[in-house]
Amino acid sequence: MPASPIRKLVPLGDAAKARGNHVYHLNIGQPDIATPPEFYDAVRAYQEKVIAYGNSQGIRLFIESLQQYYASINIPLNYDDIVITTGGSEAIMFAMMAICEPGDELIVFEPFYTNYNGFAIMSGVKLVPIATQAEDGFHLPSQEEIESHISPRTRGMIICNPNNPTGTVLDNAELHMVRDIALKHNLYVLSDEVYREFVYEGETQSVLDIEGLEEHAVVMDSLSKRYSLCGGRMGCVISRNKKFMDVVLRFGQARLCAATLEQVGSAALVAEGAKYFDPMISEYRMRRDATYEELQKIPGMLCRKPSGAFYIMAHLPVDDIEAFSAWMLSDFSDNNETTMLAPGPGFYATPGRGGSEARLAYVLNAPECRRAVELVAKGIEQYNSVNRKD
Amino acid sequence: MPASPIRKLVPLGDAAKARGNHVYHLNIGQPDIATPPEFYDAVRAYQEKVIAYGNSQGIRLFIESLQQYYASINIPLNYDDIVITTGGSEAIMFAMMAICEPGDELIVFEPFYTNYNGFAIMSGVKLVPIATQAEDGFHLPSQEEIESHISPRTRGMIICNPNNPTGTVLDNAELHMVRDIALKHNLYVLSDEVYREFVYEGETQSVLDIEGLEEHAVVMDSLSKRYSLCGGRMGCVISRNKKFMDVVLRFGQARLCAATLEQVGSAALVAEGAKYFDPMISEYRMRRDATYEELQKIPGMLCRKPSGAFYIMAHLPVDDIEAFSAWMLSDFSDNNETTMLAPGPGFYATPGRGGSEARLAYVLNAPECRRAVELVAKGIEQYNSVNRKD
Repeated sequence: MPASPIRKLVPLGDAAKARGNHVYHLNIGQPDIATPPEFYDAVRAYQEKVIAYGNSQGIRLFIESLQQYYASINIPLNYDDIVITTGGSEAIMFAMMAICEPGDELIVFEPFYTNYNGFAIMSGVKLVPIATQAEDGFHLPSQEEIESHISPRTRGMIICNPNNPTGTVLDNAELHMVRDIALKHNLYVLSDEVYREFVYEGETQSVLDIEGLEEHAVVMDSLSKRYSLCGGRMGCVISRNKKFMDVVLRFGQARLCAATLEQVGSAALVAEGAKYFDPMISEYRMRRDATYEELQKIPGMLCRKPSGAFYIMAHLPVDDIEAFSAWMLSDFSDNNETTMLAPGPGFYATPGRGGSEARLAYVLNAPECRRAVELVAKGIEQYNSVNRKD
Repeated sequence: MPASPIRKLVPLGDAAKARGNHVYHLNIGQPDIATPPEFYDAVRAYQEKVIAYGNSQGIRLFIESLQQYYASINIPLNYDDIVITTGGSEAIMFAMMAICEPGDELIVFEPFYTNYNGFAIMSGVKLVPIATQAEDGFHLPSQEEIESHISPRTRGMIICNPNNPTGTVLDNAELHMVRDIALKHNLYVLSDEVYREFVYEGETQSVLDIEGLEEHAVVMDSLSKRYSLCGGRMGCVISRNKKFMDVVLRFGQARLCAATLEQVGSAALVAEGAKYFDPMISEYRMRRDATYEELQKIPGMLCRKPSGAFYIMAHLPVDDIEAFSAWMLSDFSDNNETTMLAPGPGFYATPGRGGSEARLAYVLNAPECRRAVELVAKGIEQYNSVNRKD
């Protein structure tokens, strides 16, 4: 079980703070946007005498609010198509465990959300990574390439759209290719759509909205990013495949229920509809632009401008990103400030890949994002002059 | 993945309610005791702008309150001996996954908390059941008998003390036998101590308090029962084994964190110390006595008076407890009232065992418990007269 690349530098960051430094956290997708007041209001208004076990599927109010939300984006769902989970994390775990026996395989596109690794280890699933390339904007490879990785043990493909860590938004042609492969080989499509609203150019489509995929599409969703509710741990698994959902519900029963208060607050949030999304996306667009522009000033940096989510996967001109990221916290500071990055290798399953890449989460306001990247630029210069052997 | 015996009758119960019946829920360990106000107060007072990800180990305030609680029962713990989990459920899952590879074995004593099954399936662990007997008050079998079930793949033993579903409290001799076996065969002792305070006669001891077991003892704990906080989903894994805790923390990182607000509320509760326990235990002792007395009136019923937790595992004079429990909801009512039981077979891994047993959770007040058991008595009489073939 590997340590999380997003969190393993935290002790070094804490030490840097203890020495009086400010640390810009570009390592973790923790937005600084205020959690909307409807959440707090509903939680504070909760009057039941006992915080009791809820239904294993989730509380009715919350599930119905999600039905309305999905209907508003033209995805009609039945009540039993939804099981509430403790964050997107549990949604991923339930989905993997529901379709795989130990030793079964899931195709995943590198780089990928690092915690898929952890859940795969927990559920005994073998992740089969297929490379995507920075030069192609991390879009999917050809159908032929993908099919060459399918084995008799392959049970599904995991996609993340918009993508964490690359920010890539899959286009319709890609999604239809995914559908064709799924139907041809009878595979599940596990689609992580946590960043659905975070699209800055073009459009995104849910796998739930793709004709023909009704029995194969599984969405793993979360309120964490959409409502800045990361610490609420509220997500869901969605599918129209009844057999699959029945197994998911049994996993849900084993762990009894998701937290009651958080569901009550979340129901109130989701019932608010889309009113929080537009200003939030405008804000993130500014942050993306600032981060991307500032990155361009680093000689030798390589990345394409991402269309979605709030991450940039950047190739940085350093030999060893792990060492550099640690050094930024342990040895570097400028005006008592430094930046924490998430090193690239943790987003790859293939050893040796990502060694010069870092994921930057642009979850601070635009001036802070600029300053954080400026610190990286200064750090690279100093690091390479100190460590250069020639 | 089997359906939960505790929850699978819920649809029939809902239907009975829809027909205008009151259903006494003896099926689920959901106390009716009020959640203490300190929990609500702390949650309502939470003022942070963002419900953000917390530390994967848990928030400091909560972990420190648990250190104090454990110190108050003479169990000194270091800060890093504790990882906060989403309920006792996640504690069980993390513990199993941390010590077992898929295919490894854990010894468990039948009957056992049914959800161990679910977590074992999720983690690819094989549960090896060893029978305990109602006639012996469900106490542990001999060391010889236990050792005969140890294989090269055995990684640990699960005990639940006080026990769900039997109410049995292990005595010192049993716990020392468990220690001797663990040390002799280098096995972990996974101890589910969620009902620690619920002891009506004698005393209980934590495995954390047994000399020699420092590297082998793992406690899976929860606030659900102790503070009537089942819907809060707050628990923890505790061990002094650093290697084990390091793996647990990595699982914790994979799912990011436990819910922030619930941890804030829980910290406030635990800081209150023991003041809620004594009146609660007195109340449950009355309920146990009422339930047990009423059960004695059923001809052919067999059970020993349990010393702890809030369950009685009773042998009832019916051929098929599954059919009878369903019939109680679908066909029986007395003054528009009926009772939901948890059928015994779900608490066993060995096919055919528990077929005439039911678990009764005495989580209602004493008069309600009496009435609920009276309904079972009436139900048995009617059921057997209708279904008797002779």
